[in-house]
Amino acid sequence: MHLTNLQIQLAARPIGFPKLTDFQAVETANPVPAEGELLLETLWLSVDPYMRGRMSDAKSYAEPVKLGEVMVGGTVNRVVESKADGFKAGDIVAGFSGWQRYAIANPKQLRKLDPTLAPISTALGVVGMPGLTAYFGLLDVCDPKAGETVVVSGAAGAVGSIVGQIAKIKGCRVVGIAGTNDKVKWLVEEMGFDAAYNYKDTPNHLAKLRQLCPNGIDVYFDNVGGVITDAAMIHMNVHARVAICGQISQYNLEQPEMGPRMLGMLIVKRAKVQGLLVTDYMARWGEGTKELGGWLKSGKLKYEETIVDGLEKAPEAFLAMLRGENTGKMLVRVEGN
Amino acid sequence: MHLTNLQIQLAARPIGFPKLTDFQAVETANPVPAEGELLLETLWLSVDPYMRGRMSDAKSYAEPVKLGEVMVGGTVNRVVESKADGFKAGDIVAGFSGWQRYAIANPKQLRKLDPTLAPISTALGVVGMPGLTAYFGLLDVCDPKAGETVVVSGAAGAVGSIVGQIAKIKGCRVVGIAGTNDKVKWLVEEMGFDAAYNYKDTPNHLAKLRQLCPNGIDVYFDNVGGVITDAAMIHMNVHARVAICGQISQYNLEQPEMGPRMLGMLIVKRAKVQGLLVTDYMARWGEGTKELGGWLKSGKLKYEETIVDGLEKAPEAFLAMLRGENTGKMLVRVEGN
Repeated sequence: MHLTNLQIQLAARPIGFPKLTDFQAVETANPVPAEGELLLETLWLSVDPYMRGRMSDAKSYAEPVKLGEVMVGGTVNRVVESKADGFKAGDIVAGFSGWQRYAIANPKQLRKLDPTLAPISTALGVVGMPGLTAYFGLLDVCDPKAGETVVVSGAAGAVGSIVGQIAKIKGCRVVGIAGTNDKVKWLVEEMGFDAAYNYKDTPNHLAKLRQLCPNGIDVYFDNVGGVITDAAMIHMNVHARVAICGQISQYNLEQPEMGPRMLGMLIVKRAKVQGLLVTDYMARWGEGTKELGGWLKSGKLKYEETIVDGLEKAPEAFLAMLRGENTGKMLVRVEGN
Repeated sequence: MHLTNLQIQLAARPIGFPKLTDFQAVETANPVPAEGELLLETLWLSVDPYMRGRMSDAKSYAEPVKLGEVMVGGTVNRVVESKADGFKAGDIVAGFSGWQRYAIANPKQLRKLDPTLAPISTALGVVGMPGLTAYFGLLDVCDPKAGETVVVSGAAGAVGSIVGQIAKIKGCRVVGIAGTNDKVKWLVEEMGFDAAYNYKDTPNHLAKLRQLCPNGIDVYFDNVGGVITDAAMIHMNVHARVAICGQISQYNLEQPEMGPRMLGMLIVKRAKVQGLLVTDYMARWGEGTKELGGWLKSGKLKYEETIVDGLEKAPEAFLAMLRGENTGKMLVRVEGN
């Protein structure tokens, strides 16, 4: 065990796209667990788009991280010391201990992992928060039916790649939108999407969507927003369902963007647009995890990880994820793992 | 019976706000019913915001009216001559025979009215299409619960005034938005709204909504769109439901309007926004009509009509309705009624 803890803290609130200097690495005293608590060592750290929101002090669904506080985030940890019933040193758990080497946790905040079932890092991806977001967002908000056309933006990301695969399991035609030709190839060849396109070299999204979705769009799962979403809305079918999971094109704008008003389109299409937050489904996470785990085991669900080594590299990993440099889940592998 | 039919036809596709010259009154030969058909005389004609869409050739949920064709619209008619089983001269029916004195109809397109149950004009209002729109839009799309706050734009119109009253029946706090001080007074004093405000003399909608909805907005029933809706979206509560019934602020714009992108807000609020068209509920119209009729009879539901006399005045009535000059349902009373 190291003599000190290492924390990656929020140093400044970003203006526009975050910078490395918005973070600071600080050595702090090792935390000591009280009775009923656990001392955890971080093995894997997840970096996710929602963290951009926590860096800002704009009102949102969760409190912002304070300046000088450790960045929040989902983790996979090893128990170093247990003062709580039911846990012992060496146990592997999924938690939310943030961007730091060591942390104290209450057992209630943790889920014990069985490393023989699946690689432990999948607790941050395909059978963790991104997988559950895909599962409930697609199935509960969008109710896809066999034969329908499902379009996913941010398709090569941790959530989008699972959305598309679940839609295929449900018998849909699946079209992905991603940001590189390699991702497009990966979506079609590895993830089983029916079609995909690179938004960065597509001048006319509407024309492209019309070409790839000749029967229109029944379900649109949106991680991106902006002009891609404008086009998807226009190509929607009557009674289309749209899940708004993320709007990553908007998170780093210095000024809110204007766009064409599209509520009139919702009347014409009698479409539903619904915002999605996975924590609203917490009571059903067991159901989701079980189903995702089953698909994973049977080979129906594949996943990919983009791994950055070293806790001190977490800010770089986070910025790279915001730039779309990951394929599948972006993870930080912490030293000692 | 007149020797000729009189039709109000579409003469030109409007650019921006429609003009009287976009219509033409044309005398045509009286229609003659074939076997199985009815000859109808129009008694009441409904003018509604959706007709603005039919005057345009932009793609929408229904075919546009062609130039030189009679304007479409819901009607209450008297049977002049019946060549169909089950109908006789003198019967009163609700139909869709448009802006003309006489029309031929197939019995399947008609609903027989019992003039002893309610004034026959209510078949175009509180127990007709606007009432059913309010009923299914509020109850099916928005699922309001007792104690929740419901905001209605276009609140003094044919749909909005019914939406607010149904929300009161369901135990909600109801706030209306309308365009004159008289309407505001009428909503609160006659229709039983808890509060209302005049959007035309309100510079800051968000501040006004915060004042009138101290517990936030749980349900927003939108007939108007634009800046009013922008503000309502910001003041939504978590898990708010928004029915998009109309966007009358947008129908007469020569260029589509831009507005702040608000899909990110839907994530923060996990809100649902759904477009609404009453014809999607056709299989349940019987249920809706029965419930609305019951509320009307028991005095729980009130209604108001703004009546213009004379078929040739239909274009004026329609334009006045688009300008918001009606309170409650705007109707044209055709000569002979």
